[in-house]
Amino acid sequence: MPDFSLLECFPAPSDTPFVIEHIAEEFTSVCPKTGHPDFGVVTLLYEPAPSSEGGVCVELKSFKLYLQSFRNEGIFYEAVTNRIRDDLAKAMKPRWLLIKTDWKGRGGIRSIIRATQGTVPAHWLHA
Amino acid sequence: MPDFSLLECFPAPSDTPFVIEHIAEEFTSVCPKTGHPDFGVVTLLYEPAPSSEGGVCVELKSFKLYLQSFRNEGIFYEAVTNRIRDDLAKAMKPRWLLIKTDWKGRGGIRSIIRATQGTVPAHWLHA
Amino acid sequence: MPDFSLLECFPAPSDTPFVIEHIAEEFTSVCPKTGHPDFGVVTLLYEPAPSSEGGVCVELKSFKLYLQSFRNEGIFYEAVTNRIRDDLAKAMKPRWLLIKTDWKGRGGIRSIIRATQGTVPAHWLHA
Amino acid sequence: MPDFSLLECFPAPSDTPFVIEHIAEEFTSVCPKTGHPDFGVVTLLYEPAPSSEGGVCVELKSFKLYLQSFRNEGIFYEAVTNRIRDDLAKAMKPRWLLIKTDWKGRGGIRSIIRATQGTVPAHWLHA
Amino acid sequence: MPDFSLLECFPAPSDTPFVIEHIAEEFTSVCPKTGHPDFGVVTLLYEPAPSSEGGVCVELKSFKLYLQSFRNEGIFYEAVTNRIRDDLAKAMKPRWLLIKTDWKGRGGIRSIIRATQGTVPAHWLHA
Amino acid sequence: MPDFSLLECFPAPSDTPFVIEHIAEEFTSVCPKTGHPDFGVVTLLYEPAPSSEGGVCVELKSFKLYLQSFRNEGIFYEAVTNRIRDDLAKAMKPRWLLIKTDWKGRGGIRSIIRATQGTVPAHWLHA
Amino acid sequence: MPDFSLLECFPAPSDTPFVIEHIAEEFTSVCPKTGHPDFGVVTLLYEPAPSSEGGVCVELKSFKLYLQSFRNEGIFYEAVTNRIRDDLAKAMKPRWLLIKTDWKGRGGIRSIIRATQGTVPAHWLHA
Amino acid sequence: MPDFSLLECFPAPSDTPFVIEHIAEEFTSVCPKTGHPDFGVVTLLYEPAPSSEGGVCVELKSFKLYLQSFRNEGIFYEAVTNRIRDDLAKAMKPRWLLIKTDWKGRGGIRSIIRATQGTVPAHWLHA
Amino acid sequence: MPDFSLLECFPAPSDTPFVIEHIAEEFTSVCPKTGHPDFGVVTLLYEPAPSSEGGVCVELKSFKLYLQSFRNEGIFYEAVTNRIRDDLAKAMKPRWLLIKTDWKGRGGIRSIIRATQGTVPAHWLHA
Amino acid sequence: MPDFSLLECFPAPSDTPFVIEHIAEEFTSVCPKTGHPDFGVVTLLYEPAPSSEGGVCVELKSFKLYLQSFRNEGIFYEAVTNRIRDDLAKAMKPRWLLIKTDWKGRGGIRSIIRATQGTVPAHWLHA
Repeated sequence: MPDFSLLECFPAPSDTPFVIEHIAEEFTSVCPKTGHPDFGVVTLLYEPAPSSEGGVCVELKSFKLYLQSFRNEGIFYEAVTNRIRDDLAKAMKPRWLLIKTDWKGRGGIRSIIRATQGTVPAHWLHA
Repeated sequence: MPDFSLLECFPAPSDTPFVIEHIAEEFTSVCPKTGHPDFGVVTLLYEPAPSSEGGVCVELKSFKLYLQSFRNEGIFYEAVTNRIRDDLAKAMKPRWLLIKTDWKGRGGIRSIIRATQGTVPAHWLHA
Repeated sequence: MPDFSLLECFPAPSDTPFVIEHIAEEFTSVCPKTGHPDFGVVTLLYEPAPSSEGGVCVELKSFKLYLQSFRNEGIFYEAVTNRIRDDLAKAMKPRWLLIKTDWKGRGGIRSIIRATQGTVPAHWLHA
Repeated sequence: MPDFSLLECFPAPSDTPFVIEHIAEEFTSVCPKTGHPDFGVVTLLYEPAPSSEGGVCVELKSFKLYLQSFRNEGIFYEAVTNRIRDDLAKAMKPRWLLIKTDWKGRGGIRSIIRATQGTVPAHWLHA
Repeated sequence: MPDFSLLECFPAPSDTPFVIEHIAEEFTSVCPKTGHPDFGVVTLLYEPAPSSEGGVCVELKSFKLYLQSFRNEGIFYEAVTNRIRDDLAKAMKPRWLLIKTDWKGRGGIRSIIRATQGTVPAHWLHA
Repeated sequence: MPDFSLLECFPAPSDTPFVIEHIAEEFTSVCPKTGHPDFGVVTLLYEPAPSSEGGVCVELKSFKLYLQSFRNEGIFYEAVTNRIRDDLAKAMKPRWLLIKTDWKGRGGIRSIIRATQGTVPAHWLHA
Repeated sequence: MPDFSLLECFPAPSDTPFVIEHIAEEFTSVCPKTGHPDFGVVTLLYEPAPSSEGGVCVELKSFKLYLQSFRNEGIFYEAVTNRIRDDLAKAMKPRWLLIKTDWKGRGGIRSIIRATQGTVPAHWLHA
Repeated sequence: MPDFSLLECFPAPSDTPFVIEHIAEEFTSVCPKTGHPDFGVVTLLYEPAPSSEGGVCVELKSFKLYLQSFRNEGIFYEAVTNRIRDDLAKAMKPRWLLIKTDWKGRGGIRSIIRATQGTVPAHWLHA
Repeated sequence: MPDFSLLECFPAPSDTPFVIEHIAEEFTSVCPKTGHPDFGVVTLLYEPAPSSEGGVCVELKSFKLYLQSFRNEGIFYEAVTNRIRDDLAKAMKPRWLLIKTDWKGRGGIRSIIRATQGTVPAHWLHA
Repeated sequence: MPDFSLLECFPAPSDTPFVIEHIAEEFTSVCPKTGHPDFGVVTLLYEPAPSSEGGVCVELKSFKLYLQSFRNEGIFYEAVTNRIRDDLAKAMKPRWLLIKTDWKGRGGIRSIIRATQGTVPAHWLHA
């Protein structure tokens, strides 16, 4: 089941602004209603707090293991998205953060959910 | 025929802003003029009202059944678009909502209709 | 329901061999098990009998109306494919004929069915 | 030759703002200089005036016939674009309107012309 | 109307076998039934007879003018294809020749017609 | 774990030859070496035995459930492919059968495995 | 060598604002350092001055000949871009103008240069 | 190892604003953790200072050699990005500069890092 | 002008059969009729004679310089193709050789010419 | 430098014929002439000998390490291809084997080399 403790961080390497995007193309969880697996792409986009203010970045492998912990969890699209947003926001306290989940079609309908924390600049919102 | 009562909603899972996009790639209705079937892609994009204000989200399967209720309805492109916009706005009372219908070509011309409710942020209007 | 009588033919215009391919991208029928609509692309590929032997071609608009007659029919993928193959073979008595149905995914699996009549040359079988 | 009288309109179905885009992929006219045919894609994008103010939409088939009336007309790219803009603006008196013509290459150069009427919102100008 | 006399040929430049393919992406004629324009791509693929046997190739600009002579002709898909095949075969007497016409969709169905003259090697038939 | 008993079959609908292709785009199992999940596309391509000889087809939903039974199984690419080939061959006794597994990249290398049963016609082997 | 005198203009056809884009996909010049040819795509995007103020547009064929005059010129990417910008600005005195040159890769690096004249609206700058 | 001294500059050719983009598609360095090579695309986007203020541009071949100097360096994604940003900023003192590194997937996750110097106009930030 | 003497060869590295394909995407020559430049992609595909029989391969840079020697030559598509075939066949005496030239469109028609020397295996002819 | 000893094999899992394809998208070596890095995609396609005859398959991670051992080797395209073919043939003694190397362009020319061992079935040769 989703395991916040898997997330590890390292100090942000710079005070100069930069933006990090991780695109995890092999996310899978389970639909709590039907018991069938769901598949999607999870994108994490964020600006870390400056290193001088103790800013941190999530370590890539720990992020992968964290996402894998959803593998057998029964959880809806919206809940996955909000859960990841909340966990990453808590772990990193970034300037701002955007989570986008893009799900494979079910019954001819595919869904994209975007959740944010902090003030995401307008040019990133439609990412 | 289009059946508003098929739409079911569930409470928005969060007060933090998020945006939901459902892309229904297998929409079909009937042209009232020629009697031939029309085919298109219907996109619903919206920001639910916050959960603390009683915000709700449309349930995905009920949205699918609602769209299927247009299958044998004779109805023009513009009317489909406005009807779905009005029905979803009434069902969810979201912060804002955008309906885009993207129709397969007829006679060498293909059409895209966008209708909105509430104040859609500019970066979403061209979605 | 599928209506063979809708198919109309016209005399093949030539004795020289030629091959005709019609790709109908907006086919829809209904799954007899779930009642949900199915969507697919139906390809008809055939070589008409020579005009000097009474060869005929199916008229395009009548083919469209024939395909539309499956719209509200509950019928499986394999049955659709065999039915169209049999009806077209009966209507045209072509040299050979290939029907390919290519269905939108359901539950993460998409299907392609190919059925033939007569001796289809090897280079067309994988079309 | 281009025939304004072919354009027919119907009352805008709503007072709520919506935007209509028609993409005509099979436009052809004749180059007045060389006599050779030109081919292009004509896009009409507009917001009708509200129905309560007598707003109207162009009827799709009449728009197709109107575009077909350029088939044997000797006329330059810029003139086609301005002519369609002026005719549609006169016929519909929309809130705003954008005509984009996207021409197949000639001599290794392809051209795109955009002409507007009224105040087109910035997010549409690059459509 | 289609004008055979527009076709001009020049001597094949070599006795060594070679194959020529011309892809005319801007073909248009008129549907004799509806009066609406048809649009398609016409491909000519052939092996000229050897120059030592008087083999010839069709001159490219004359081929273009020949194709343009169908612009206002009311003629069906199959007839266009057979007509071009017959005219080119007569003009060039090539080793073999394949004409493929690939038409824009009408009513959700698009068509591809292939007609041959002589013994087209199997690896070209599905071109 | 992989469960052969999930596979259900139904009688082949016809004696006329036809070919069935199911493309399962959401297959996942677990690498027995690293414990990390693997993701791939599994294609089943086969010609059922004729109905008059007791030929059968695998039922689509049972095939989906069968593939889902590999979800938490630690198993190598080659073993997955051979296992599915053997299970399907045993369940259907088809004329011939091809299993192709196409795996997402690992460490910059992606792999495709093809296993067959019976005499697969040459034009399908490279499918 | 680049020949400004090849550029010819014609009066802008309208006072209503419109934007013209010419995309020349077959530009070639010579690298002054290596003597090897460079290949790129040159895009000209501009808004002509209004016709009532003497606004003009560059004639398409003259623009083609002008670009061809760089064929055997040894000239760097940046210099090509600035030269074309300056020549076109001088010839047309447009409201604003953007030149983009997009070069084929050399040694694994490809380059895009954009130069402007006048106040190019923000939504065009990233064209 | 990364070698700043490889970077050479030449005077900016103009005072008129222009923007230069170099896309290096064959960047490789080494992961300091696993010792395995990393592969990515490095994009440099900048506006040089005006030539009248001593503005300079980086010479393309020297930029290539500089990037090649990372080939056997063990260095993380974020450090590569910041290092290149800092080195180029120091070498050119441009108006503004954006470095984007787009990395091939590792374990199903691919990453994109963007770092800036100076005030990058908003329409470029999402480049 | 085309300069055969630019072609240099090196001994084939092996007796085991192998096939070499060079795709030159930036070929340009001049149309002898109009004086306008032509652009195309030249593909050379061949199997060298075995090294034990004195087989040789064309050196890549010398092939590039050879192709550049057509830059200002007025020469037709068919002649370019036959000329390159003859020159390469003379220089390398390979087992077999295929030259394919794929030209950018002119007046809406694009052309592909293939010329061979020796017995090209069937599966390569349609390359 | 290329290190044959890195290759490890495991027993082929079956006597039934199957075909394995590994596509290594991140190959790099060094040009011995210029000292610049080369980048390409290496495809290994083979049919292992049957397990009852002691057939083996190359282990995927060892294949990756083997390919990485070319990273700083100065070696030509043809030599890379023959070397990998020889090493893999020696390590696995497969029924047949095909190595394809597909190189990023240099100076506008990109190259594809294919080398084989044993009797590769015709339908794979053009893979």
